[in-house]
Amino acid sequence: MEFVSVAIFLELPLSIPHFLLCTHAVSSTQKHKAQKLRPHRGRDYQRERERERACVFVVCSRIFSPPCVLPEKAETGEEKEAQAFPVDPELEANCHATVVSGWFSDKVGKGMYFNNPMWPGEAHSLKVEKVLFKEKSEYQEVVVFESATYGKVLVLDGILQLTEKDECAYQEMIAHLPLCSIESPKNVLVVGGGDGGVLREIARHSSVDSIDICEIDKMVIDVSKKFFPELAVGFDDPRVHLHVADAVEFIRNTPRGKYDAIIVDSSDPVGPAQELVERPFFESIARALRPGGVLCNMAESMWLHTHLIQDMMTACHEIFKGSVHYAWASVPTYPSGVIGFILCSTVGPPVDFKIPVNPIEKIEGALEHWRELRFYNSQMHRAAFALPSFVKREVSCL
Amino acid sequence: MEFVSVAIFLELPLSIPHFLLCTHAVSSTQKHKAQKLRPHRGRDYQRERERERACVFVVCSRIFSPPCVLPEKAETGEEKEAQAFPVDPELEANCHATVVSGWFSDKVGKGMYFNNPMWPGEAHSLKVEKVLFKEKSEYQEVVVFESATYGKVLVLDGILQLTEKDECAYQEMIAHLPLCSIESPKNVLVVGGGDGGVLREIARHSSVDSIDICEIDKMVIDVSKKFFPELAVGFDDPRVHLHVADAVEFIRNTPRGKYDAIIVDSSDPVGPAQELVERPFFESIARALRPGGVLCNMAESMWLHTHLIQDMMTACHEIFKGSVHYAWASVPTYPSGVIGFILCSTVGPPVDFKIPVNPIEKIEGALEHWRELRFYNSQMHRAAFALPSFVKREVSCL
Repeated sequence: MEFVSVAIFLELPLSIPHFLLCTHAVSSTQKHKAQKLRPHRGRDYQRERERERACVFVVCSRIFSPPCVLPEKAETGEEKEAQAFPVDPELEANCHATVVSGWFSDKVGKGMYFNNPMWPGEAHSLKVEKVLFKEKSEYQEVVVFESATYGKVLVLDGILQLTEKDECAYQEMIAHLPLCSIESPKNVLVVGGGDGGVLREIARHSSVDSIDICEIDKMVIDVSKKFFPELAVGFDDPRVHLHVADAVEFIRNTPRGKYDAIIVDSSDPVGPAQELVERPFFESIARALRPGGVLCNMAESMWLHTHLIQDMMTACHEIFKGSVHYAWASVPTYPSGVIGFILCSTVGPPVDFKIPVNPIEKIEGALEHWRELRFYNSQMHRAAFALPSFVKREVSCL
Repeated sequence: MEFVSVAIFLELPLSIPHFLLCTHAVSSTQKHKAQKLRPHRGRDYQRERERERACVFVVCSRIFSPPCVLPEKAETGEEKEAQAFPVDPELEANCHATVVSGWFSDKVGKGMYFNNPMWPGEAHSLKVEKVLFKEKSEYQEVVVFESATYGKVLVLDGILQLTEKDECAYQEMIAHLPLCSIESPKNVLVVGGGDGGVLREIARHSSVDSIDICEIDKMVIDVSKKFFPELAVGFDDPRVHLHVADAVEFIRNTPRGKYDAIIVDSSDPVGPAQELVERPFFESIARALRPGGVLCNMAESMWLHTHLIQDMMTACHEIFKGSVHYAWASVPTYPSGVIGFILCSTVGPPVDFKIPVNPIEKIEGALEHWRELRFYNSQMHRAAFALPSFVKREVSCL
């Protein structure tokens, strides 16, 4: 395992206008959904990786990624087209050592541990019972292993994405916080979310007519269908329309006001050169929402990134112009054991996210659809918006 | 680092009547306050360690401790008196390797990491900048180190007790959840809490006339005063009366109805043989509370121990007879990133813990006393009682 030295990046400029590039870049690596949306950059992706990487490290100023997440060499021409993530053999070897590595033993015998690379200064490790899958897709390395105590685990480019034990908290909260905050959502878009877990949750809402999902990496979907049937079941809903595509392109081509809700189950690590693309991406999201439509976007850890949350909140206020709120949930295998969400509504019928006007308990069959709700309920919805005093102090617009 | 094999203990019986022994035994190892109250067992402690240990492992069925927490050999006679925790040199060496061990390197150089031994199957590790203190008290090994990103860290017998970065969440919640649930608390007892952090928080309450604290290990107090002045400042309050003593004995001798609130900032790992002692300990607490007085006791992780929470809730209902509730808070460096609290009131004026009738925001000077409140506020108080659906399902009396 290897940490990236921070100092060498600190000379690069950092300013709030970069927030939608940099903070989302950061969140994607930090918050374990790194690789899903990143490939949405498509053909220009590789060309921008050097600058992108700089941005990531400047903004969070201590983020870490294993070498497989950030290969040193970029290919060119046709080779680039054929393999979006070219691999240096030496780095690849390092990467594999990082993703699944033995580092201590128990009395039963030597244990293999997956070291979740979170931050310089800390790490969370899960014992590996068996590696079930390890392949490179066009975009990233996909690993699935059976852990000793958290069930099966999905890892993309060395970053833990989900575990069977605690995925309920993330999937249920990111889906129901927005959908229970508006009356009768009908058209919903999921950006990323190739594991299907968010689809499974949206499907509880009987008012929903159509669920679009835009995920770039088909291997994530296939792997989820094979190893995570309790998540991939979401794809079985007849209301789901799968688009294996670049989400930026997809949203740009979406008719104005099409969606009642958009859920971004991923974040976008792109560099300063992408600024104009990125801010427009969120402007595109706002445009794709109906008046009073809602966005729920994963948004950092309140224990680790109040400065990033501040920047994101400020910009979301500017872009979405309706209400903007921050909520959080406990997810043990995510950095610092929590994950945050930014909830925004566009101008139109006012949305008070803190009160679930469309309570899940009153939606027929919602509590039991496919499987029982494990984490979310209306009490948890309201409680998610209660913030520690230090967060309220450090994030001025809360 | 070494895991304890679970299988060999599974033949031992487990039943709800053991709850106050076993669950508290477990919680003390799990929830990082292990060593503070354990010595309260006094002279009989060593004699019971073998059975105690068995109980610990039976109940949680996968708990782990480094060898220094559970030495293999018990001394006898005078030797036992002189050294409550005798040490096998080989195990001691293992222990030191466990408490602070290098296990991976960053680009700056080889990093020393403290591996927080939580559970077989997972671990959380903090990078060590410098070990500041390492000594054996009469009861336990006390280590203080400067971490890379969580400030100074206190470790007792290999178990992380607190970090400067996130101690605010634990100390503020365990103090203000009970004290803000009753009008004008005057007499308060802290069991354990030798670092002083809970005292610091109680001192915000201007209604309080007297704060007794019963902590067995003077070294913890001295170390806190030297390395954690922001916690030990609690001892400076003139209302504080320090008793370096066995808490069971102390509470047994407390006049009936003396306290408005008792805060147990520790848990008690004792074995089946201690049952009669232990259940009476909590009965003593109930007796030491005035009618309508309140107890706040640390109570496991909702992600890891719903069966233990169930047992504790059931027994607390039997013993305290007033209201009994479960609350939780986010603490990144505790197992699964959360810590729970059981709040109980004795028969008398009813207490609705979910609503802070004595809101901290209305107590003059409370928000700024010694330092600003960092985590707790009235919104967080109410939110702490919102429980995930799986917890409500698995713990029937919630």
